[in-house]
Amino acid sequence: MIVVKIGGSLSASLDSISTDIAILVKEGKQIVLMHGAGYEADALGEKLGTPAKHVTSPQGFTSRYTDRATLEIFVMAACGKINTFLVERLQKLGVNALGLSGVDGRLLEGTRKDAIRIVDAERGKQRILRDDFTGKVEKVNAELLRSLLANGYVPVIAPLAISHQGDAMNIDGDRAAAMVAGALGAEQLIILTNVPGLLRNFPDETSLITHIDKSRVEQSIDFAQGRMKKKVLGASEALRLGVRQVVFADGRVAEPLKRALEGKGTVID
Amino acid sequence: MIVVKIGGSLSASLDSISTDIAILVKEGKQIVLMHGAGYEADALGEKLGTPAKHVTSPQGFTSRYTDRATLEIFVMAACGKINTFLVERLQKLGVNALGLSGVDGRLLEGTRKDAIRIVDAERGKQRILRDDFTGKVEKVNAELLRSLLANGYVPVIAPLAISHQGDAMNIDGDRAAAMVAGALGAEQLIILTNVPGLLRNFPDETSLITHIDKSRVEQSIDFAQGRMKKKVLGASEALRLGVRQVVFADGRVAEPLKRALEGKGTVID
Repeated sequence: MIVVKIGGSLSASLDSISTDIAILVKEGKQIVLMHGAGYEADALGEKLGTPAKHVTSPQGFTSRYTDRATLEIFVMAACGKINTFLVERLQKLGVNALGLSGVDGRLLEGTRKDAIRIVDAERGKQRILRDDFTGKVEKVNAELLRSLLANGYVPVIAPLAISHQGDAMNIDGDRAAAMVAGALGAEQLIILTNVPGLLRNFPDETSLITHIDKSRVEQSIDFAQGRMKKKVLGASEALRLGVRQVVFADGRVAEPLKRALEGKGTVID
Repeated sequence: MIVVKIGGSLSASLDSISTDIAILVKEGKQIVLMHGAGYEADALGEKLGTPAKHVTSPQGFTSRYTDRATLEIFVMAACGKINTFLVERLQKLGVNALGLSGVDGRLLEGTRKDAIRIVDAERGKQRILRDDFTGKVEKVNAELLRSLLANGYVPVIAPLAISHQGDAMNIDGDRAAAMVAGALGAEQLIILTNVPGLLRNFPDETSLITHIDKSRVEQSIDFAQGRMKKKVLGASEALRLGVRQVVFADGRVAEPLKRALEGKGTVID
């Protein structure tokens, strides 16, 4: 079993990624897909006059601030446009894809962070934001995924979860993919993104770190910039949950998934 | 088993409809929901500067003309906003809802009408439109729905289907609900809308037709105006497929589903 996370910035590469997925599925591999939605949601928000709000935590992690209006835009981009058309694309290639978000059947459940501490960039001070529909996945309905896989479907998951109280929430797709991989006892978690992997000197792509020993993954967070921090965190979580190998790989190249499975990128095991 | 179609114009009534659904589910009834999306898609299209295009067939049926840009908007409204937030609403009431569109797992499959004959209102002539992503459901993946129902999920279906070639298509929700009810061997198909039922003299609500014998349902299409025509057509199809009873009922009242099940509306059996 392989869990593949397709970064939200890879919309121009969906043809080659989907082709690779179709080949793996035809070879009999069980695949679960998770996709991002940030770029598409931001573009839709701009068009609708509600631009995205991003916040930075005191620890330096950047995330999306999601009030109810922003959640609505995020849902339209994530569950609507990206998920449905990715399923359509895979169906055209003969893959029996089935789209879900974490809200469906409580697939991804967790705690809503209704109060988050952020760094106010303008004033250089910390403050608390409320009314945020963001959360962290704590529980995966692995039974639902296993039942779909057993019946020949390829689940395609949009990055939303449901809170214990039943609120839809925006979640980090990389960490959610890690939770899914862990819950399913996946062999590998492949995180396709718009860089070749973890770079020692970001953004110098020649400084690619090709291998990280799993005992040292947490230290490697020091090299990670911006959103890559969450990918490293996700990798660490997946490995702790028993996933054998995590690969950060470039989704923009030809045969991106094939290359990732050949170990091109940053391999963590 | 009851299939309930919730009209796209009923967004203000989703609280009472969802409450009724939760009661039925707690009583152990198997429910499948299908929802509309037209109103929401039209509103989103206006906001995005791509207003909806509607066309009328030579037979007098009105339908949406869906080029690729319009399909994208329809998908964002149908699979994104309406489906996800209806699932969220039901989950808050303890119903283990799971959203799908007909594209997912080829739930609803059919032929795409890539060339449609329409009446050009301005010139009063007929002409052919191409590049339309609209179709008609011919095949329901009943196995997928049965498997979800057997595992305790309440399927919530957005009005899209997949063509035999793998294109996502906009479909008529009423006729799709009829196909679903037929494929599942449902006892009843309840079509909730923003009128009390079929009216002998539209829009005079006191002229409600309370009962139609199933042998006469096709004649009753003469009373139907606009979109009600498709509901009558759907009812006729559902009954032909073995559904025992179809009810057209008012979704705007208190306890709308309870009232419909008591026979308030237009009962066809």
